[in-house]
Amino acid sequence: MSKIKVGIAGYGVIGQRLADGVALQKDMQLVGVADVAPTLAVRALKEKGMPYKLFLATPDRRPEFEALGIEVSGTMEDMVAECDVILDSSPGGVGIKNKELYERLGKKAVFQGGEKNSVADVFFHGYANYEKGLGADFLKLTSCNTTGLIRSVDCLDKDFDIERVAITIIRRVADPGDYHRGLTNALQMEKAPSHQAIDLMTIMPHVDATGILVHTPVTHGHIITVLATGKQKITKEMALKSFSKHPRIRVVSIDEGFLGNASLFRYARDLGNPRGDMYEIAVWEDSIVESGDSIMFAINIPQEAVTIPETIDGIRAATRMQLTSDEATAKTNEYLGMGKWK
Amino acid sequence: MSKIKVGIAGYGVIGQRLADGVALQKDMQLVGVADVAPTLAVRALKEKGMPYKLFLATPDRRPEFEALGIEVSGTMEDMVAECDVILDSSPGGVGIKNKELYERLGKKAVFQGGEKNSVADVFFHGYANYEKGLGADFLKLTSCNTTGLIRSVDCLDKDFDIERVAITIIRRVADPGDYHRGLTNALQMEKAPSHQAIDLMTIMPHVDATGILVHTPVTHGHIITVLATGKQKITKEMALKSFSKHPRIRVVSIDEGFLGNASLFRYARDLGNPRGDMYEIAVWEDSIVESGDSIMFAINIPQEAVTIPETIDGIRAATRMQLTSDEATAKTNEYLGMGKWK
Amino acid sequence: MSKIKVGIAGYGVIGQRLADGVALQKDMQLVGVADVAPTLAVRALKEKGMPYKLFLATPDRRPEFEALGIEVSGTMEDMVAECDVILDSSPGGVGIKNKELYERLGKKAVFQGGEKNSVADVFFHGYANYEKGLGADFLKLTSCNTTGLIRSVDCLDKDFDIERVAITIIRRVADPGDYHRGLTNALQMEKAPSHQAIDLMTIMPHVDATGILVHTPVTHGHIITVLATGKQKITKEMALKSFSKHPRIRVVSIDEGFLGNASLFRYARDLGNPRGDMYEIAVWEDSIVESGDSIMFAINIPQEAVTIPETIDGIRAATRMQLTSDEATAKTNEYLGMGKWK
Amino acid sequence: MSKIKVGIAGYGVIGQRLADGVALQKDMQLVGVADVAPTLAVRALKEKGMPYKLFLATPDRRPEFEALGIEVSGTMEDMVAECDVILDSSPGGVGIKNKELYERLGKKAVFQGGEKNSVADVFFHGYANYEKGLGADFLKLTSCNTTGLIRSVDCLDKDFDIERVAITIIRRVADPGDYHRGLTNALQMEKAPSHQAIDLMTIMPHVDATGILVHTPVTHGHIITVLATGKQKITKEMALKSFSKHPRIRVVSIDEGFLGNASLFRYARDLGNPRGDMYEIAVWEDSIVESGDSIMFAINIPQEAVTIPETIDGIRAATRMQLTSDEATAKTNEYLGMGKWK
Repeated sequence: MSKIKVGIAGYGVIGQRLADGVALQKDMQLVGVADVAPTLAVRALKEKGMPYKLFLATPDRRPEFEALGIEVSGTMEDMVAECDVILDSSPGGVGIKNKELYERLGKKAVFQGGEKNSVADVFFHGYANYEKGLGADFLKLTSCNTTGLIRSVDCLDKDFDIERVAITIIRRVADPGDYHRGLTNALQMEKAPSHQAIDLMTIMPHVDATGILVHTPVTHGHIITVLATGKQKITKEMALKSFSKHPRIRVVSIDEGFLGNASLFRYARDLGNPRGDMYEIAVWEDSIVESGDSIMFAINIPQEAVTIPETIDGIRAATRMQLTSDEATAKTNEYLGMGKWK
Repeated sequence: MSKIKVGIAGYGVIGQRLADGVALQKDMQLVGVADVAPTLAVRALKEKGMPYKLFLATPDRRPEFEALGIEVSGTMEDMVAECDVILDSSPGGVGIKNKELYERLGKKAVFQGGEKNSVADVFFHGYANYEKGLGADFLKLTSCNTTGLIRSVDCLDKDFDIERVAITIIRRVADPGDYHRGLTNALQMEKAPSHQAIDLMTIMPHVDATGILVHTPVTHGHIITVLATGKQKITKEMALKSFSKHPRIRVVSIDEGFLGNASLFRYARDLGNPRGDMYEIAVWEDSIVESGDSIMFAINIPQEAVTIPETIDGIRAATRMQLTSDEATAKTNEYLGMGKWK
Repeated sequence: MSKIKVGIAGYGVIGQRLADGVALQKDMQLVGVADVAPTLAVRALKEKGMPYKLFLATPDRRPEFEALGIEVSGTMEDMVAECDVILDSSPGGVGIKNKELYERLGKKAVFQGGEKNSVADVFFHGYANYEKGLGADFLKLTSCNTTGLIRSVDCLDKDFDIERVAITIIRRVADPGDYHRGLTNALQMEKAPSHQAIDLMTIMPHVDATGILVHTPVTHGHIITVLATGKQKITKEMALKSFSKHPRIRVVSIDEGFLGNASLFRYARDLGNPRGDMYEIAVWEDSIVESGDSIMFAINIPQEAVTIPETIDGIRAATRMQLTSDEATAKTNEYLGMGKWK
Repeated sequence: MSKIKVGIAGYGVIGQRLADGVALQKDMQLVGVADVAPTLAVRALKEKGMPYKLFLATPDRRPEFEALGIEVSGTMEDMVAECDVILDSSPGGVGIKNKELYERLGKKAVFQGGEKNSVADVFFHGYANYEKGLGADFLKLTSCNTTGLIRSVDCLDKDFDIERVAITIIRRVADPGDYHRGLTNALQMEKAPSHQAIDLMTIMPHVDATGILVHTPVTHGHIITVLATGKQKITKEMALKSFSKHPRIRVVSIDEGFLGNASLFRYARDLGNPRGDMYEIAVWEDSIVESGDSIMFAINIPQEAVTIPETIDGIRAATRMQLTSDEATAKTNEYLGMGKWK
């Protein structure tokens, strides 16, 4: 079988990681990445010797790239023309414009969470509604928080039939290196219910979800507390067993040294993961407590990389490479090396 | 009736505010404050012209104070001898030692939350278990988070018979001006269940409570999300009505401009409150959401000042100045000016 | 002599403090304050019982204020008509528009540092170039950093004839309660030389100044290190003596407990200063070191309140209330209570 | 020539990076690393499949490691016995104890900056005083700030004969993932002169140095402003040319997108550098300004990795692998891949 050809539109925080993730998939071929300006990410690509081809979404700026010695392989349209699927990780609002190009050239695309739901035919999660994405032309991934949250809720749902969820999102306000937004010595409220709870209900319509989101001045991962109620009582042991077998969930504990979100980032750096990234969410074993028949626990969402696996699952669904979530996620996980520590 | 004589042991963040709060009670007399060293708080007292008498817990350091021109009115023992009740806000672990002095001189005392529960006869909250404190020699106040949390839960409990509570505490890690502890770009987990949930059950034994606490690098107030389940369904309107009439709870909204904990601090400064302090907890109207029959909401805990009213209630209970919570809290509130904005 | 009538345009962080400062001047009368919306500051004014009259810069929004029960005393034009001098602390770029109104009604105005220099006839500092402002119609104050910096350099200049200055500004990025800007776990460079060095040379043209500014994620005051070179060698003792006698400079030390900018904010709160504000800059005694014939030291700039005294000096200059800096600053200082701790 | 055998004592933030750096030196052999407990760093080593041998400084805890499935290759004494040189990056105060072991077994050691100077025969910097370290048994590296600072001053000194330096250190207070120390919304002063200025004078005795250090609540690199005075006037162009040719200095600019210390960390992550580390200091081109005959500029110090090259230089000096700084640093740089982007 020939490899599925994939291009990345928008080579920023997410786009770089999508490119690296696709490059690891043995049944896919990375055609290249497209961007608009010689950003730091593009300069790093050049300093690394251009492991990926770079295409320009703004062909008129080509002289600017050439003056910096950055090799350009063509226009973004050239790239799209070569691809089967585009992963669109351009800034929110740009994807909807790019979609015209994808439609004109008859290409499929997977958008990131920053776009409006209307950009896509299906709002997608690799585990929770894979089948909905089968053969679709345009998918939109859940956002980073929702992707990680659904992983944990879907994990319990498959074992215990979750009916209701109440979440508190302790959100990181910026990524490391972000200067365009920030928060200094303040917690910031958002109006409830949080969009993540709403989004969860779109993907998992049998679950009643609500929640509150608070922004915090940190950069290394969101923490979400989840109170989940199933059809039966869920004990701590039952939840732990369920989480422990999931290839995209890492069970950690304070006693091991995982004191918070920054410990997970440090650990991922020390593992030698590129950029210190982690695809897995973590659940703290010592955060799991029972509340009546419900179970409460805290998870860590590594916002920069968490959506990569489910986005790659999206390629598999849209192109019908695999017909079930089990088969698709198994392939994605194998190539990303997920769960091999288990 | 003669005034109740009150002394403050430990003139730090809490002690200064206790002194100011007691000084406002027309049925109490502030004998003075005691400390061990010429801290910034003591230097500020001097620069203000010594509105309160200062006593020394470390009489041998008297020359040090005199060299700085700080007037000393006697030893801490002198102060205790003059008092009916001591408010002990010395650092955790010191109160238990001070207790020997209080016992020797036959004085009552109210300890702050940093001491172990065993220091006191009764673990006390002015609204939730006032009657337990009546006539007691040694009370221990709930900590700042627990005091504010119980205010909100007790408020709903009186109207709707709360049975279960699950909380997420987004904790400020330090006070403004603290240099002895801090957290930089990290969220920090504590083992669940949080002590605040345990403490709530001690004060309100008919409620089943659990929760998760996460430290965040901010200084201007904790935010707690509370999921409360009553004997009947509680709607948003019912909860709002209940909170709105409580003199120690301020209902605020994002639309008014209260974007987070730092907005409340700014508002308290702009109100002209001494130190920019606020005795009230705030509940965000736009955080209140229903989850099945339960109600979920977010409160702000101004950690430096929130325990002052309930501590003063403790004086009233220990000395039997008032025999019911209603009468006692009404007096405290009147003298502190609480709820007059309503 | 009748009192000078003063109005405040823009009741934000600076405007509120200007209003309070003017209200303390026994030879001035505060006509009122003007703003455009029912901000938190305006809501606090209402909750305090309207100690100052409120005028509307946006008369069409009057119903919005009335619906909130906020008393409105007229339009901003009504206020300006009653005044001799307007202190314009509206957001950057608005002052230049307001100036048309002031010109039309023949009123003098003092603008804050956020406006362009071209808004005013004179770029002004109460100590360093008071005489330039005498009788001027439109003054512009130096910004918070520059105001405090010039205080310290002018102090040394009067004693030791400063010729050159090199500064490093460790800038707080936001005020407490700011949500519209922030920085999270990052230091941010600005292109050198910093505008504060340029501005210093405009006010003190005999000094050669340059410097570098770095933004830091804190809210309680800038710290500037200054390397100053005079015509003669300046020793630590000489500098200390010079600083110690200045009524707007507070000499502090780490040993006293002033560990950093947050200690000064805490101390101001504990002093009972409204909002925990401090008009004085602080210089750390234990930061002063000699470098060849030059002197190096660190100052703290309390950004919210530091420009208030010099702005009030500006009223005195523009209206020729006093004809020398010595007389004018002495009056301002007396009414603000500055230097009385010395 | 047989390879120099090197062991690492203390596998923490610095130790892990020393191990990786030594492993890249083709003329050295990494014997292994030693630590005392199954820290996160050790757990990451295990998860990576033990690329380095692990030795125990606390042999009695061996069962704890074995229970976790972590392979132990012997005691720290076993490791030391196999080595020619030990790089001691154990916590401050432990190195002096380890030194007894090194002396007993007749081994050389290079200590990190946390130890007292008395631990070593020579206080060492690979560029500024390489020859002093030739053949020495015990070297102590300068600390991270001093190492980077000296790189920049030595670079100018070799070209322009630096005579005087005045620095302002804007210090990161913790490393990413540190929970044992932190600072929240505060700048913290240290008594001047900073130890880095003192240390610079020890290494470069012909330079008069002083400076002020301020801690800031960030984790991704110190920023130091340096005012350097040479025997002749140094222009911006002269300084730039000097910095541009140094293999351990990277010249960057705000216009390229390097907005601050966090941009450099992001760039290093995007380069694919292990852990997102950077061995080079950066100097901002747009920070360089002239002050009289002196030159002022700002550098970034990546605290976690900056001392690795100079520490490896220390091995070369102690073992007389190369007899000059030029030869030694060229070897270190070649194997670390430094300067290849130039």
